Amino acid sequence: MARIKTDNNLTRKEVIVTKAATLFREKGFKAASMRDLAEAVGVEAASLYNHIKSKTELLHELCFSVANRFLHKIDEVELEKTGSVEKIEKLLRFHINEMIHHYEEVYVSDREWKHLSDPYLSNFQNQRRIYRKRFAAIIETGIKNKEVKSIDAPTAVLIMLHAISGIESWHRSVQKISAEELEENMISILVGGLVNR
Amino acid sequence: MARIKTDNNLTRKEVIVTKAATLFREKGFKAASMRDLAEAVGVEAASLYNHIKSKTELLHELCFSVANRFLHKIDEVELEKTGSVEKIEKLLRFHINEMIHHYEEVYVSDREWKHLSDPYLSNFQNQRRIYRKRFAAIIETGIKNKEVKSIDAPTAVLIMLHAISGIESWHRSVQKISAEELEENMISILVGGLVNR
Repeated sequence: MARIKTDNNLTRKEVIVTKAATLFREKGFKAASMRDLAEAVGVEAASLYNHIKSKTELLHELCFSVANRFLHKIDEVELEKTGSVEKIEKLLRFHINEMIHHYEEVYVSDREWKHLSDPYLSNFQNQRRIYRKRFAAIIETGIKNKEVKSIDAPTAVLIMLHAISGIESWHRSVQKISAEELEENMISILVGGLVNR
Repeated sequence: MARIKTDNNLTRKEVIVTKAATLFREKGFKAASMRDLAEAVGVEAASLYNHIKSKTELLHELCFSVANRFLHKIDEVELEKTGSVEKIEKLLRFHINEMIHHYEEVYVSDREWKHLSDPYLSNFQNQRRIYRKRFAAIIETGIKNKEVKSIDAPTAVLIMLHAISGIESWHRSVQKISAEELEENMISILVGGLVNR
C-alpha cells in the first residue's frame, strides 16, 4: 500500500490522529480497530506503529488537545475586562464553533473519554469538573451583579453544554440551516434565557 | 432461585421490563445479556422466557411505551385553547419530568433505539421525526403570533431536547439541587430564551 498521504501540511501523525477521530466517532473507541484505522489512512496496520504506540495513545492525544483548547479559551475569557453576559456569550460561541468545525475530535473527547487509562483518566475528569466550575463562577458573578437572572449556575452550565452537544443532530440532518444561522439561533435562545430583564 | 418478586402490584412482565431498562442503560443494549437480566430479576435465565421472547422484544416494549406517552401528551397539548408559549412550557415540563421520574426507560428509548429491528426501527424513527415536527409547528405558530422571538423552530426543538437530556448529568451528580428546582431552572432558561420581549 501507499505511504501515508499528507495534505494541507499535516504531519503523518496528524493525519493518523484526524482519521482516528472520525473512526472513533463512527464506530466508538472500543469497537474501532487498528486495522480499521490503517484502512482509513490507506496503509498497512504495521506501518501505523512507526508513528503511534497504541489506539489508547490516539485517544489521549484527541482528548487532551480538545481540553487544551477549552482551557486556553476560558483563561482568556476570565481575564477580559467585559461584563459577565459578554463572557458567557464568548464561551458559548467558542463551544458552538468547536462543535461545528472540530466536530469529530470534540465528539470523541466528549463521549469516549471514559476509555482513557489512568493517570490520564482521572486527570481528564478533573479538568472537565474544573472547567464547568469556572464556567459556573462566571455565571455566578453575572447573577451577583444583576446581569444574569437568579438561577442555579451549575444547572445553567449543564443546560448550555448539553444544548450545544445537540449540534450532533445538525451534522446528521439533511436539510440544515447554515453554520452561522445555527450559531445565531443558539446564542439568541441560550443567552436570551440567562439575561436579567 | 426464587420466583420473580412483584412489588407495587407490578405484573411479572412489568418487573422484567423495568429491570431491563436499568440494565440496558447501565451496560448498553448490545452488551447486556439475558443472563445479566436474569441475575437482576433474581431468577434463572430460562424462566425469563416464560414471560418474554427475546432481549429485542424488551427494547421494543420500552421504546414504544415511551413513544406512546409522548404522542399522547402532544395530542393533548395541541388541542388546548392556550397560547403557544404555554403549550411549549407544558411540553418542556413533560419532557423534564419524564427524564427525572422515568429516567431509565426514557434514556434507553433515546439512546438505544438504533438496535430496534424493522419494521419497528423505521416506525420508531418516523414517530420521532413527526414528534419533532409537531413540536416545531407549535413554535412556528408562536413566532407568527409574536409570542415567540423570530428563530429557526427546528433548531429551537433541537436545543430544548438536548438541554433536557442533560438531566442525565443531574442523575449522576452527587451534590444536586432538588427535582423541583431543576425543573424551574430549566423552564426559566429555556422558555426565557424563546419568548419575544
